[in-house]
Amino acid sequence: MAPKLGIVAGAGTLPAKLVEKCREIGRPYFVLAIEGEAEAATVADAPHAWIRLGAAGTGIKLLKEQGVVELVMAGALKRPSLSSLRPDWRAAKLYAKVGLRALGDDGLLSAVIKELESEGFTLVGVDSVLTDAVAIEGRYGRHKPDAQAEVDIAHGFRVVEALGSLDIGQGAVVQQGVVLGVEAIEGTDALIRRCGEWRREGPGGVLVKAKKPEQERRADLPTIGPRTVELAHQAGLRGIAIEAGGSLVIDREQVTALADKLGLFVIGCRKPA
Amino acid sequence: MAPKLGIVAGAGTLPAKLVEKCREIGRPYFVLAIEGEAEAATVADAPHAWIRLGAAGTGIKLLKEQGVVELVMAGALKRPSLSSLRPDWRAAKLYAKVGLRALGDDGLLSAVIKELESEGFTLVGVDSVLTDAVAIEGRYGRHKPDAQAEVDIAHGFRVVEALGSLDIGQGAVVQQGVVLGVEAIEGTDALIRRCGEWRREGPGGVLVKAKKPEQERRADLPTIGPRTVELAHQAGLRGIAIEAGGSLVIDREQVTALADKLGLFVIGCRKPA
Repeated sequence: MAPKLGIVAGAGTLPAKLVEKCREIGRPYFVLAIEGEAEAATVADAPHAWIRLGAAGTGIKLLKEQGVVELVMAGALKRPSLSSLRPDWRAAKLYAKVGLRALGDDGLLSAVIKELESEGFTLVGVDSVLTDAVAIEGRYGRHKPDAQAEVDIAHGFRVVEALGSLDIGQGAVVQQGVVLGVEAIEGTDALIRRCGEWRREGPGGVLVKAKKPEQERRADLPTIGPRTVELAHQAGLRGIAIEAGGSLVIDREQVTALADKLGLFVIGCRKPA
Repeated sequence: MAPKLGIVAGAGTLPAKLVEKCREIGRPYFVLAIEGEAEAATVADAPHAWIRLGAAGTGIKLLKEQGVVELVMAGALKRPSLSSLRPDWRAAKLYAKVGLRALGDDGLLSAVIKELESEGFTLVGVDSVLTDAVAIEGRYGRHKPDAQAEVDIAHGFRVVEALGSLDIGQGAVVQQGVVLGVEAIEGTDALIRRCGEWRREGPGGVLVKAKKPEQERRADLPTIGPRTVELAHQAGLRGIAIEAGGSLVIDREQVTALADKLGLFVIGCRKPA
């Protein structure tokens, strides 16, 4: 049987999906829930402990006591301000080593992963546990992009590639050739809502999400779910394009049914080489 | 004396500044105010006409009747949707030629300028009329960036360079190494407000503005004014860095006084080569 899985739980529904999966396949697990990020419902009936993001030493100790060997990090973690972090000695040592001051999210996550591995943990990606959530190549429902949407999707992938190479974000919205909005710290939901306010008449825009070129695959893959489709519809978008193989679709059946019902396309695309 | 200046007026205070300048130096002028964009106060006491953005033929005819030879385009123009544009035959011909469908703002503006020049107009930049508004290199007031702010400014210029090369936008906000937000269609004011909501504790962020690498210099240079300083202060930013020689500071004295009073730095930087 697979070894006990340690789930480091940030925001969103992804950690709950991992818990669900572990139960389904009868795999033992333990949730390390990050205060201010993880949802209480995620851990309610699961073996778990809450820790501050800055309490790396406590977290490592807890995981070892629980006999966790394999670890997965799931869900968004807002990078906190340096002053609010209140690192314990273990975290402080790490931050000093990686030079937190000049790091973006990627750099920080890679450093955290390296450090956890030096403690003897094996880090795995969410996609290796939720294998059926990895975005396929092709359509999720019956709607498909027209010629204008194809142009917007291609431009969106170029934009997200540029954003990603600077560790800025994973998403953008393009309508009729114009970049309506670009995702940074605010996340995809806020991006979509904002672009609803800035949309122009005529054919709606598309949301494009892709992982950053240098992104540590085991941290924070681009993710969409039914809620993303719902928000996209409310904002007048015509569809969503995600990186096939490099992003996650949570609740695939619901996503497909909702997209069909609301008239949106959802499509997985290989990133242009 | 300088020839009559045609002022194509979009949104914001820039067109009014041009009118003010023409009066000050006794230069004749005529304002072509774009409906839905230009402010009524700008043209109230000025010789002017209103036109739809799509009415290129009417606009050209009016300017020629007025004996305008030199033209300046000032203030933001939101690129409208294709369907709302309702181009007259002259505009339609242009759009067909440039392939509007796949164009961003830069491409569109360059095409418009080229077309106007083929009609015999000479296009000049706002900076060649408002010469004293061109951003200097160095500080505008007494406050200056500290070491963290210097790091954030340098990163901000890298981010804006990447955005600009994709014709996305001219601004970004960076705090403690993290890109809080990136400007697309929403403009700088909305960017600043949003970043106020996403700021973290500790030293505040910086707003960085620079023109796009390929930007047509005669169209839409990055601009700040007293209002930008006020909004930046409200959003908890510590300062503003703009591209020296490549952006405009409107009402320099007010900008400086306000920055000094509110404790912000405003600094013009040569873009790193």
